Amino acid sequence: MPPDRDTTRLHVTYRISCADGEDPAAKARDIAYEQTVELPADSVSPAVVARSVGRVETLEPAGDGCWRAVISFDAGLVGAGDVPQLLNLLFGNISLKAGIELTGLEWPRALLDQLGGPRFGIDGLRSLTGARARPLLCAAVKPVGLPVEALADICYRFASGGIDIIKDDHSLSDQAVAPFAERVGRCQEAVVRANRETGGTSLYFPNVTGPAAALPERADLARRTGCRGVLVSPLLVGLDAVRCLAAPGDLAVMAHPSLAGVFFHDRHGIAPAVLLGELFRVVGSDAVIYPNVAGRFTLSRATCEAINASLRKPLGSLKPAFPVPAGGIDAARVPEWIDRYGVDTMFLIGGSLYAQRDLARAAGDLLDVVRRHCDG
Amino acid sequence: MPPDRDTTRLHVTYRISCADGEDPAAKARDIAYEQTVELPADSVSPAVVARSVGRVETLEPAGDGCWRAVISFDAGLVGAGDVPQLLNLLFGNISLKAGIELTGLEWPRALLDQLGGPRFGIDGLRSLTGARARPLLCAAVKPVGLPVEALADICYRFASGGIDIIKDDHSLSDQAVAPFAERVGRCQEAVVRANRETGGTSLYFPNVTGPAAALPERADLARRTGCRGVLVSPLLVGLDAVRCLAAPGDLAVMAHPSLAGVFFHDRHGIAPAVLLGELFRVVGSDAVIYPNVAGRFTLSRATCEAINASLRKPLGSLKPAFPVPAGGIDAARVPEWIDRYGVDTMFLIGGSLYAQRDLARAAGDLLDVVRRHCDG
Repeated sequence: MPPDRDTTRLHVTYRISCADGEDPAAKARDIAYEQTVELPADSVSPAVVARSVGRVETLEPAGDGCWRAVISFDAGLVGAGDVPQLLNLLFGNISLKAGIELTGLEWPRALLDQLGGPRFGIDGLRSLTGARARPLLCAAVKPVGLPVEALADICYRFASGGIDIIKDDHSLSDQAVAPFAERVGRCQEAVVRANRETGGTSLYFPNVTGPAAALPERADLARRTGCRGVLVSPLLVGLDAVRCLAAPGDLAVMAHPSLAGVFFHDRHGIAPAVLLGELFRVVGSDAVIYPNVAGRFTLSRATCEAINASLRKPLGSLKPAFPVPAGGIDAARVPEWIDRYGVDTMFLIGGSLYAQRDLARAAGDLLDVVRRHCDG
Repeated sequence: MPPDRDTTRLHVTYRISCADGEDPAAKARDIAYEQTVELPADSVSPAVVARSVGRVETLEPAGDGCWRAVISFDAGLVGAGDVPQLLNLLFGNISLKAGIELTGLEWPRALLDQLGGPRFGIDGLRSLTGARARPLLCAAVKPVGLPVEALADICYRFASGGIDIIKDDHSLSDQAVAPFAERVGRCQEAVVRANRETGGTSLYFPNVTGPAAALPERADLARRTGCRGVLVSPLLVGLDAVRCLAAPGDLAVMAHPSLAGVFFHDRHGIAPAVLLGELFRVVGSDAVIYPNVAGRFTLSRATCEAINASLRKPLGSLKPAFPVPAGGIDAARVPEWIDRYGVDTMFLIGGSLYAQRDLARAAGDLLDVVRRHCDG
């Protein structure tokens, strides 16, 4: 941040692209008004303009016919760590206008402290799993449609093979074929049993994504069952639900990117490194799953590396969070990804374990490869 | 719906566009797997495929190099009216893939009954406001940055002029300059006072959008203060929060489209008529604000008319909801919009009232114009 900036204000960088005849300065000013007073300049008193309207701090060409505008907002507009209003201020109404992408944030320290960020973070998840110096391994229990017994058996096998974190598939909610309460008990029991047999420290993270009233109940049940963390899809339940899950500080939070793709467009939306790398982190995600390049989805390598960097970068007093590349990572190629992304990464391996008949052995082989590759 | 369809299943229409070499049938099948078992076909047992995987019911060319796929899903995948899982099933992971737009839904009756829809609907809001045969008028109290006293004064003026529903601007949350609790009391009192003086029936709807724990508290406070409805931004708080607000049946719910624009892209996302016209309605919105064509935003006339049609169409036992075109409607042109959209419309007029010095008179003049135009 340039030294002359008012660090008590929230600074937001927008990449603006202009249609024919559109003036970038007018467009930047329009964002500053639309996101705050939502009235034309001549309908607002000078006192309210000074207090509420965003300030266009800088505007510069950004190549490709685009402009980079930094607009600062009074942090008081957000209220006391009010996450829905934060989202509204950052991109609410302007989501309905063309050619605007949120590409960067600079946070007032006080706002970061109110939001709280990860309670475990990278070090905390390393302590929970006992994996001190190597990447963590994660696998998903699936598919939806299996009864609880079969899901628990998969948990047992992954834990027997030493997978660090075994999480519910994000589509397992509270379906009749495998109700949440029964599933969390049986799956946690299966992982504990495997740990007892192997001396391992695998963890089971159930998916607590659900209706507004059910979500805290599911988290409580996970807690009482002995789970040390949970999976949640922030964009399905509202970002503030993540802050609520993280706040007590006794459950680690892994965030799933379901629905995130609607934000990721050329010249529109919220950049993946901001949404997954920064907003998911500030509300309390200890680990953030994202669709890795070269898998089934469409993010570029540069975008994936930007997400990793955002999750790990210094950010006020907030802890760094684990990037969790996923979505078609081949177990055989994990060493390459370690070289590329570094050890402070959690790899979520799905299909390429399931494609092998013996899940415990497939998991164990993968863990051996990772250990050998990292001398850990 | 064709007569041979299984009406217990959720039928979803996707408009698919294919990149060079992509096969539309393979892409439709991929959606059916990605949104359910999330594993390749050869890793899933036939029993689970039959139970969980979506079925591609039809696939036909849709012009412009696109295809229309209807995929049906077992309603059991949603669980008992689980709104986050519904969203996840409809567009969660595939949001991260290119060339897929959700353009239509056909609901199992049981799922609609679980979700509940509007508790007031068009008739209920007409009863509350006493406006039986004409369009309703809505105005927003703003801007953020004004103290409570000034906001209450605006409420008083709009109510004196006979605006049916005076709602908080969606950016008024719980900022220190106008805290929620103080604002709701003073603004409601101002509207009641104006009604007493004029014999009118104006209503004040405070914005209850806020952190997960605060939202029900704000709704309760609104209720205790005598408000008959509230404003909420479903995409900021999570769609299920709307269902929770609507469920008790004593507060009407007006929905704001903040953040909705991220869904509206050429060949990607969820079509406005589905998101605003159908999903917002099924979770309980009695009135849905959308950015009207020819205003500050980018929806086309056809899209606006499709939203109107979705909100009003027969849908199981659900009540119809008011379309609320907004975002730069000129008060002087309201008669034209009435002719175009019909009387079952609520017009949200903002800037063009604020541009006039005397808000009460501007509101009264507008109401007169509407009454004369509709003989009501």
